[in-house]
Amino acid sequence: MTENVAAVVRPEFDYDAMRDDHGDLRAEFVDAVSKAIAAEDAVWLRGLVSELHEADLGDLIEALDSDERVRLVELTGADFDFSALNEVDETVREEILEELEPAAVAEGVRELDADDAVELLQVLDEEDQEEILDKLPPSERDALERSLDYPENSAGRRMQTDFIAVPRDWTVGEAIDFMRETAELPERFYEIYVVDGVNHWQGAVSLDRLLRSHRNVPLTDLVDEDRRKVSVDDDQEEVARLFGKYNLVAAPVVDSQNRLVGVITIDDVVDVIEEEADEDLKALGGVTSDEELSDRVWTIARGRFNWLLVNLATAFLASSVLGLFEDQLQQMVALAVLAPIVASQGGNAATQTMTVAVRALATRELGAWNAVRVVMREALVGLVNGVAFALITGIAAYAWFKVPGLGVVIGLAMICNLIAGALGGILIPMALERMRADPAVASGTFVTTVTDVVGFFAFLGIATAWFGLK
Amino acid sequence: MTENVAAVVRPEFDYDAMRDDHGDLRAEFVDAVSKAIAAEDAVWLRGLVSELHEADLGDLIEALDSDERVRLVELTGADFDFSALNEVDETVREEILEELEPAAVAEGVRELDADDAVELLQVLDEEDQEEILDKLPPSERDALERSLDYPENSAGRRMQTDFIAVPRDWTVGEAIDFMRETAELPERFYEIYVVDGVNHWQGAVSLDRLLRSHRNVPLTDLVDEDRRKVSVDDDQEEVARLFGKYNLVAAPVVDSQNRLVGVITIDDVVDVIEEEADEDLKALGGVTSDEELSDRVWTIARGRFNWLLVNLATAFLASSVLGLFEDQLQQMVALAVLAPIVASQGGNAATQTMTVAVRALATRELGAWNAVRVVMREALVGLVNGVAFALITGIAAYAWFKVPGLGVVIGLAMICNLIAGALGGILIPMALERMRADPAVASGTFVTTVTDVVGFFAFLGIATAWFGLK
Repeated sequence: MTENVAAVVRPEFDYDAMRDDHGDLRAEFVDAVSKAIAAEDAVWLRGLVSELHEADLGDLIEALDSDERVRLVELTGADFDFSALNEVDETVREEILEELEPAAVAEGVRELDADDAVELLQVLDEEDQEEILDKLPPSERDALERSLDYPENSAGRRMQTDFIAVPRDWTVGEAIDFMRETAELPERFYEIYVVDGVNHWQGAVSLDRLLRSHRNVPLTDLVDEDRRKVSVDDDQEEVARLFGKYNLVAAPVVDSQNRLVGVITIDDVVDVIEEEADEDLKALGGVTSDEELSDRVWTIARGRFNWLLVNLATAFLASSVLGLFEDQLQQMVALAVLAPIVASQGGNAATQTMTVAVRALATRELGAWNAVRVVMREALVGLVNGVAFALITGIAAYAWFKVPGLGVVIGLAMICNLIAGALGGILIPMALERMRADPAVASGTFVTTVTDVVGFFAFLGIATAWFGLK
Repeated sequence: MTENVAAVVRPEFDYDAMRDDHGDLRAEFVDAVSKAIAAEDAVWLRGLVSELHEADLGDLIEALDSDERVRLVELTGADFDFSALNEVDETVREEILEELEPAAVAEGVRELDADDAVELLQVLDEEDQEEILDKLPPSERDALERSLDYPENSAGRRMQTDFIAVPRDWTVGEAIDFMRETAELPERFYEIYVVDGVNHWQGAVSLDRLLRSHRNVPLTDLVDEDRRKVSVDDDQEEVARLFGKYNLVAAPVVDSQNRLVGVITIDDVVDVIEEEADEDLKALGGVTSDEELSDRVWTIARGRFNWLLVNLATAFLASSVLGLFEDQLQQMVALAVLAPIVASQGGNAATQTMTVAVRALATRELGAWNAVRVVMREALVGLVNGVAFALITGIAAYAWFKVPGLGVVIGLAMICNLIAGALGGILIPMALERMRADPAVASGTFVTTVTDVVGFFAFLGIATAWFGLK
């Protein structure tokens, strides 16, 4: 059977045998692997995992069943690249690591760069981490423990601790000879760093500058001393902004004494950028940032419950405004039918403004220097669209219910609510940012509460006055 | 006066004089520049712009007034780095380019890499582009025109056309000597490419591999032939996914005959990742992706109008369901007060599901292989939270209105609507994706329409049956 299996995937685990035109994994490929796992065809599986890029191996792992995942790692032993586990959802990673023998995990961890090892281990609780760290040689254990001591989301957690640091008085030739003669260089690097005798960072030399210079050129001629560096405690989001802004591929990480302790590379930063975008998007949608596609029903339901509870409270608040006008609603039931339209239109206009505001705050495009202008502009946009939709809604409402004046009433309410929505949509995120809360997480609830309450109140209040209801 | 100005910013345009602790531009700094522009202090301004990183210069330009921006470019002439204009909003860029003399723009464009020049020019309409291109030497003009001919958002538009290609039979030493002796190398590069006699791409050699190898090692020993390459017509989003997945810093771009025509580097890809995240976020918030913070009121209002109009239509549709039950609403006005709660809770639950679905589709985590499992899971989450909120809302509604049975009615409606929301939230984005529409753009409207209609219908329908209303 396994011969057949092999025939499907070979020659050489061709990329096209693995993925369809859309880039998705082929079901036949996943099936073939499942069958090989069931048949314990270790030889074939070892060949497979050592050919696959870690990212592809990660995708394959996610496509397998829970117990197949662990069996795959066990069957392939030393050929399995543990960095593939950093390519899968944290829930999946945690599950696999907990099922495996700590000694096996320790073996896998030893093969990783510090940043990858930290990323792998940080999903485990401290006890499980200790069990694995205990199986490592003391020097490697100490280094990892140090990295794990840095706060989550800090540069210290993300950095690689392998880097090339050379003395300031070397020439290009000396640096090149050093790299040719040193066996244990980082797996990938884009620049080397110049340090003084006690490891204080002095500057960076990019490899392309090194390569286009003659051997006798002193490094001091090439070194970039103005290069932005990162402090171990810096937040990863700050680091990502720096990379994006100055087009960096790597940045030195220094401790509080300006000693070079690591390097952050662009691949980690790309992950951060994607994570942060993910967080903002989910936060605006009312989903916690750690929800993952592989989570179980119960975990997801619980995670989403809190936000829905907050929303329920605000929905009751908005409805209590309707409750204030019970008598009027009974006298003119058209008001009950139309009120949600005013609230909904305001809510959507406010969401537009809020989305722009949250994004502009995240990218630092919106700040004290342009706040007044942007707020004014949003208010005007609210007015313009308020008037436009006042006309449309007014005509439609009159055409529907044929009540004279109803169009004017809903039109006026629409203008009020779109202006309120615009102001709420911009001022609430700005206020949250100033209070150092994350505008993406909390703005939505506040903003739609404003437009529900203002929408109902304006519409029913104006209607009560206009029609003389009581 | 300008002496004073200089004193504020110097020594050497120190970063801290320019930005506060938060990284925002200091108002005093911007003021100092404004004054120097007003005083036409070209010497000082030239010193300033040549010291500033293009990204910082871009931020400064955005902080200036419209006419100051153009004056700054004019006053600083050849010292002004036009790549700074790629760091500002497209609206601002277009405005500046249109104000400047075409000859001046052409001079600036000549200093740029092909990808930067294309990015700069593509905001202009064809006529304005031609005016500038006409001022360039024929060879540069042809190259730019070729790049501008590639479709928008394609790899061809994003690539740099400067790269290092060497023959397959060279050694490391020959490659290094070539780089040392060639004056016109790309400004920054991370790898070199091996090509055959007719420029067919053969593989990549990263600079770190080159540097750690001895001079006599043949390049064929170092070359990575499996490296993913990009085709000129590939969509930039596809390219970004490739970089993120395989941790690339550069990728060769080939034409349909596998001839090497350019290289895409990670800094361009970071821009793409940010743009795409921006697009998805804005699309979910009902804002067009090209809306920018510097746009005028009218442009913004018009851009947002369309989506609000669609929303208005769906709001009327939902309200027409309320209209069907006018008599029942009049008999029991509590129904009118509570109906928006059912709709709102469903809408929010659906938005949570939709957000996760849209993101998972964008990152390719959700596909045919796991669709059934994810849909089932979402339906179950809807059921679990539906039951939870049925209890909470039921008790609250009964406590409020003291109508026996009202709690049961709203509870049942809540369960229906949260399940409908969950299914709508996952199935609608998946259906849109299958129809090759962008799920981020269109899902929101459809999804909340479902929960509004189902919410009103379920609540009022169940109430009508339970209380025997007519």
